[in-house]
Amino acid sequence: MSPKITVELLRQLRQAMRNSKYITEPIHAYIVPSGDAHQSEYIAPCDCRREFICGFNGSAGTAIITEQQAAMWTDGRYFLQASQQMDNNWTLMKMGLKETPSQEDWLISVLPENSKVGVDPWIIAADQWKNMSKALTSAGHSLVAVRDNLIDAIWVDRPARPSTQLITLGLKYAGLSWQDKILGLRTKMAERKISWIVVTALDEIAWLFNLRGSDIEYNPVFFAYAIVGMSSIRLFVDSKRMADPAVREHLELDNPSKPELSIQTAPYESVYTELQAICAGLGPKEKVWISDKASCALTQVIPKAHRSPVPYTPLCLAKAVKNPTEIQGMKTAHIKDAVALCELFAWLEKEIPKGTVTEISAADKAEEFRSQQKDFVGLSFPTISSVGPNGAIIHYRPLPETNRTLSLNEVYLIDSGAQYMDGTTDVTRTMHFGTPSDFEKECFTYVLKGHIAVSAAVFPNGTKGHLLDSFARAALWESGLDYLHGTGHGVGCFLNVHEGPCGISYKTFADEPLEAGMIVSDEPGYYEDGSFGIRLENVVLVVPTKPKYNYRNRGSLTFEPLTLVPIQLKMINTDLLTQKERDWVNEYHRKCRETVGAELERQGRKEALDWLIRETQPIA
Amino acid sequence: MSPKITVELLRQLRQAMRNSKYITEPIHAYIVPSGDAHQSEYIAPCDCRREFICGFNGSAGTAIITEQQAAMWTDGRYFLQASQQMDNNWTLMKMGLKETPSQEDWLISVLPENSKVGVDPWIIAADQWKNMSKALTSAGHSLVAVRDNLIDAIWVDRPARPSTQLITLGLKYAGLSWQDKILGLRTKMAERKISWIVVTALDEIAWLFNLRGSDIEYNPVFFAYAIVGMSSIRLFVDSKRMADPAVREHLELDNPSKPELSIQTAPYESVYTELQAICAGLGPKEKVWISDKASCALTQVIPKAHRSPVPYTPLCLAKAVKNPTEIQGMKTAHIKDAVALCELFAWLEKEIPKGTVTEISAADKAEEFRSQQKDFVGLSFPTISSVGPNGAIIHYRPLPETNRTLSLNEVYLIDSGAQYMDGTTDVTRTMHFGTPSDFEKECFTYVLKGHIAVSAAVFPNGTKGHLLDSFARAALWESGLDYLHGTGHGVGCFLNVHEGPCGISYKTFADEPLEAGMIVSDEPGYYEDGSFGIRLENVVLVVPTKPKYNYRNRGSLTFEPLTLVPIQLKMINTDLLTQKERDWVNEYHRKCRETVGAELERQGRKEALDWLIRETQPIA
Repeated sequence: MSPKITVELLRQLRQAMRNSKYITEPIHAYIVPSGDAHQSEYIAPCDCRREFICGFNGSAGTAIITEQQAAMWTDGRYFLQASQQMDNNWTLMKMGLKETPSQEDWLISVLPENSKVGVDPWIIAADQWKNMSKALTSAGHSLVAVRDNLIDAIWVDRPARPSTQLITLGLKYAGLSWQDKILGLRTKMAERKISWIVVTALDEIAWLFNLRGSDIEYNPVFFAYAIVGMSSIRLFVDSKRMADPAVREHLELDNPSKPELSIQTAPYESVYTELQAICAGLGPKEKVWISDKASCALTQVIPKAHRSPVPYTPLCLAKAVKNPTEIQGMKTAHIKDAVALCELFAWLEKEIPKGTVTEISAADKAEEFRSQQKDFVGLSFPTISSVGPNGAIIHYRPLPETNRTLSLNEVYLIDSGAQYMDGTTDVTRTMHFGTPSDFEKECFTYVLKGHIAVSAAVFPNGTKGHLLDSFARAALWESGLDYLHGTGHGVGCFLNVHEGPCGISYKTFADEPLEAGMIVSDEPGYYEDGSFGIRLENVVLVVPTKPKYNYRNRGSLTFEPLTLVPIQLKMINTDLLTQKERDWVNEYHRKCRETVGAELERQGRKEALDWLIRETQPIA
Repeated sequence: MSPKITVELLRQLRQAMRNSKYITEPIHAYIVPSGDAHQSEYIAPCDCRREFICGFNGSAGTAIITEQQAAMWTDGRYFLQASQQMDNNWTLMKMGLKETPSQEDWLISVLPENSKVGVDPWIIAADQWKNMSKALTSAGHSLVAVRDNLIDAIWVDRPARPSTQLITLGLKYAGLSWQDKILGLRTKMAERKISWIVVTALDEIAWLFNLRGSDIEYNPVFFAYAIVGMSSIRLFVDSKRMADPAVREHLELDNPSKPELSIQTAPYESVYTELQAICAGLGPKEKVWISDKASCALTQVIPKAHRSPVPYTPLCLAKAVKNPTEIQGMKTAHIKDAVALCELFAWLEKEIPKGTVTEISAADKAEEFRSQQKDFVGLSFPTISSVGPNGAIIHYRPLPETNRTLSLNEVYLIDSGAQYMDGTTDVTRTMHFGTPSDFEKECFTYVLKGHIAVSAAVFPNGTKGHLLDSFARAALWESGLDYLHGTGHGVGCFLNVHEGPCGISYKTFADEPLEAGMIVSDEPGYYEDGSFGIRLENVVLVVPTKPKYNYRNRGSLTFEPLTLVPIQLKMINTDLLTQKERDWVNEYHRKCRETVGAELERQGRKEALDWLIRETQPIA
């Protein structure tokens, strides 16, 4: 991987920072956040502004350019990747390390007095704007909104915003009609005396209307905004898309069942002026809900007295708790996904000794097997297929120039997933096709112990996911090891593979308590830079459980693994496992064999079935 | 325990809320926080305003009185106690339960439009003022500072503010002179370009000047403020105290070694006007440090542009990391404390069968044994001596009307500690002097497993204490049990038994990372309302440790128990322990026997020594 050459781009950007065509007064620094106008984690090519300016293409990172310097902040998953993709005009700011300054502190330390720092108000979230603005102001600087995006100004061949065909999801997949979702939302609005809600997160809009798109690779969403009132619904979306009769019928555009469930559509871009119009008509006590992660631009349209910012919208919370249809869909999707992976691993075992399988071809093969499964739509994120040292790059994606051949001598890590009409998958397995070293086995076993500790944890109703994070690390910590990423994220149902508001992390973000029906990943790891990477990831469903006692009638929860793919026994040092942990592995493998075995049998996939049976032998 | 009758007091207070003698416009609600002007947790009798108005005398709780209602918020430790101490004019607000509204939400739900809510700006912390004010303002109400405290106005026999004699701590106890502490503080101020620091926390002032007092029971502090600049030091304290020649010499009041280390003393009450004078002379760029937990009154003296609020002052952080002299002192204090407790338990074993020992007499006996130890100053908090159902009241304190007799049939819980010149102790043991039930043993063993899980945890440098909290709960959770309090708090060295900025709690307060030299408690519990209480508490020192590996050279930490008092073997169901846990118990008891045994021998306390030897037999 060679870094992007950015000398000329930085020169042009710095020129734009002084150009009165874009700004009234020159700015001394320009912030380029990672997201789009919806604060999406994965973004469309037209929104990859931070990658365009610095070369780093990971899913999280913020670039800041001053007159003299350029720096980019990202987290532990991306330290190695970012250092390889950026040239020496850039300073990599490793977030989470003690010595790394925050963006605010760094700006304050490098800026001359009374500086102006610019940012596009559409791509900075309102809460980030607030914090940044406060810090800069208290140091005598100011944060200014630059309406013309300066990256777009210098980006000559910037791609167009996509507008893909929409898919309608019937009750069979969604479990709840969009009309019922609207009514549920309005009940919550009425409870809190809220007149309107502005919906800016793309997955919330997709979930609310039971629609899917493919505007953003891997995430089945589409560019839109929605504003829902107690008696009206406005959907802001490219009007061409609304010409599709299936969509018109699904949304009852021509023939609404009830007036208060009639959707008015309007162009995507008109959300700003429409929201202004709505706000102009607000009564003195009326309140508007908007996520504090919505864009600063849109948030500021709502007068402060009417604004009711929330860390998570009620849609985000409702979406996180899957309904029975969604849970069943997720289970089915994971069985199909396991079939594809059993096929892959059986195939790899046969092919690797020939020396012809590479990271890329293995990833392609995984996609091929997945695409043979019913209701397959696409991948849920770029497959991380990594051999040996590449495995230590936490969010590695194989490229022709980094592509390694799978062999009998190195650890192979594959983190992959798919979108099916009935659910989204995300699974990581780490395997050795020859003989793993004692150290590799030792590390793998600590990771497995951490994975089991979370998966088997019993905890009271109302527990936040971050309280479970240390369970995943205890075995690694005891040997002086650790991993620099969180342990789990929420997973959507035929939606984004990363979704809020729950998760399992040492970072105590304001996660919402776990409740039955939520779905998260459980993915501890260990990464030995320059040598190998280990991660073990299942998607797990939060389920009620009944331990011996029930303190204060709070009830207890635990996890049920949805992912049903064998964990390679060869990588386990069973001496390091307790009897309880051995029992967990055996019970998990029994379930894999029973459930996925039946499906492999049904699909007549004999080789994969043989592989599955061999890989799920009980351990002593 | 019978509740305090508050009808007449509430009537008088509501009258004061409308009385133009105290307020310019009538207020619709009045907030009575728990603390004093220094936001102390333990307070002097003259500051027990919340107790005066509602009867509840726990260490945490806020009362709010409106024209029609009166409500009091406290946490899980005090639910039972508060419900017993308050009459039915009061609503108990159980913090931490989902259905309990926050103070802000409750006020907004009960107040008429455009209400004024009053509070004494000296006893509300700046950060609390800010949050409360923001919430009220956004709902159309306002928070107003009422300079005359309305409780004081109706409190006819309010005690005077204490002004006890000061004790000077030499290097032998403090390890570092106050001059060196000032220089260390100024280094930190220079690093952050800070001109002044306002010190309001009583333990920070006591620590900084190596002085102790006894103005507040159990906490060896004295009423004072300090303001430290780069070349001047001001100490605001009752001038009578400065007449003591020992104090004058210690502070070099008459003969300072260097002008910049010369202390100017001024009356306690003059801090407000002196701070005003200092702020009037500030240069445009000068900044003043003040804790965001300092009083709103004093904080607002500093113009916003000059104010640099911090969650923890550098003194708080410096105080938390004990120096070698302090660590040695804490160890010595804990050995002496263990001697006293061994004496107590040997005595209890002999006396309980006679049926004459009560909760109060046992507590008195504990104090008597402690007072025989060298450098004993007093208790570090009111002894919790509780039998059977009283043990389930987490912060129980035996009173004549609740006093139970210790017997062979009920669990006995004693949580006690002392102030010695060389250190502060805090230890809880739960014992049964007859035959515990299987359920009592089962619960005790889960609590022990949690205690060991924290105490033996190995974790990377930089880990915050709250990440360890779930370790203490895992065994309880697995059986559907839990406890509604944090797992540990910082402990001062001959200072407050509760101190920041570190701790171990499920509440993710902004705790600072644990580092070697910090001292915290490890005290999981289980409480069966109406039946028994179990808690197992050691004070533990954070120490470096060297596990097998050292990931990214971060280094690892673990805990070393300072408390060395046997854990009653009779209460343990050893079948529920892993081999590792059994080894931990045996190694802990070996250390108790070796270290405390030697001191018992030296002091010629034969009976207690026999008891210790018997109680520290290894378990299989």
